[in-house]
Amino acid sequence: MKTLGIIGGMGPLATADLFKMIIELTPAKSDQEHIPVLIDSNTNIPDRTAAILSCGKDPRPEMIHSAKRLQEAGADYLLMSCNTAHYFYDDIAENIHIPLLHMPKLTAEYARQKGYKKVALLATDGTIKSGVYSNAFGNSGVEIITPDEEGQKSIMGFIYDGVKSGNWHYPIEPVEKALSALSVLGAEAFILGCTELPIGFKEFHIEAPTINPTEVLARKAIETVLG
Amino acid sequence: MKTLGIIGGMGPLATADLFKMIIELTPAKSDQEHIPVLIDSNTNIPDRTAAILSCGKDPRPEMIHSAKRLQEAGADYLLMSCNTAHYFYDDIAENIHIPLLHMPKLTAEYARQKGYKKVALLATDGTIKSGVYSNAFGNSGVEIITPDEEGQKSIMGFIYDGVKSGNWHYPIEPVEKALSALSVLGAEAFILGCTELPIGFKEFHIEAPTINPTEVLARKAIETVLG
Repeated sequence: MKTLGIIGGMGPLATADLFKMIIELTPAKSDQEHIPVLIDSNTNIPDRTAAILSCGKDPRPEMIHSAKRLQEAGADYLLMSCNTAHYFYDDIAENIHIPLLHMPKLTAEYARQKGYKKVALLATDGTIKSGVYSNAFGNSGVEIITPDEEGQKSIMGFIYDGVKSGNWHYPIEPVEKALSALSVLGAEAFILGCTELPIGFKEFHIEAPTINPTEVLARKAIETVLG
Repeated sequence: MKTLGIIGGMGPLATADLFKMIIELTPAKSDQEHIPVLIDSNTNIPDRTAAILSCGKDPRPEMIHSAKRLQEAGADYLLMSCNTAHYFYDDIAENIHIPLLHMPKLTAEYARQKGYKKVALLATDGTIKSGVYSNAFGNSGVEIITPDEEGQKSIMGFIYDGVKSGNWHYPIEPVEKALSALSVLGAEAFILGCTELPIGFKEFHIEAPTINPTEVLARKAIETVLG
């Protein structure tokens, strides 16, 4: 069986979430029927949003280091559990000779197949301003909208001060207000475009039609290995 | 920061559980404050119980392969998320030059510190007959008892046909009967001596005083890196 490699640590909990999702979605009845997975939860990778928006430390050297390390250790396909990280997709891909799955592009393909016309992107400032999702959705026929300034602040607070900090008492009313505003604008579903968001939506029991790019990626990775 | 390496795939879900526990128990407020972790979820490792009890395929070559691979990739300390696997501890340890933490020995030390006099071991036939825990508890001053034949069959069914198969409708009455019988014999706590058991106890909401060796191992690993 082919081996999956996860460039992780962006963040660690999201890495564990992707790993667990791959296991749970694999039709296996014993340990040996599961897909071999190599993970580099490389927490030395600097913050991606800071790098894109405010001249923070360049994350590419550590990301490429992890990609090469996983390739050398025997990975056949690579995955990244961080949306914002896909801003640096080409820099990584050109340094390795194994395929790196592209989560935002797979998500666009999924939304198109589901028949959505308009979806809302919930993500970090870095992911939104990087254009990772708007580029991926470019020719898909699915329109992507984003929260207004106040709504975006609410989403960022939820991601950083709520989920990433493990603060499960974080107030979620501002997030719910942002979702309502996007629905009014015609959003049929919400792309959970930061890997902390599926965790946060689950922990805080936020009910809404969502597309989880991590799940889309996990399913594609399993399909790639098992056929 | 030092890097932890997990010899995983025994089973995959238990590997994800150990990884997640390390993350959740680490006092970190950003991705970068977390501990770097390398994981080899090597599902090519043959069943440990089958190897010990019924001349199944030798798991040592693949376990040693994973240990070396993690060491070469940069791990400073190794951990195994499988109790039964510790039967082969010495074979692995002598093939690497970095420390391999010993989960059953750390569990015995924990039980002693908690002041327990008698605990019950819930584990696979392989783990029990291997003597991994009875050896580890040898000089700890804490007595270890195990289920009778019927109780042990219930535990094995729960592990293999329930948790490992992801069958969340598995009937748990036989497990609860086994726990009651052990309490009557004086067991003050139950060692969840198979990594599928903490997952199973949580999913099936089984209430009992437990010692989770995975958690003991995770806490020790964090302490080892962060001091």
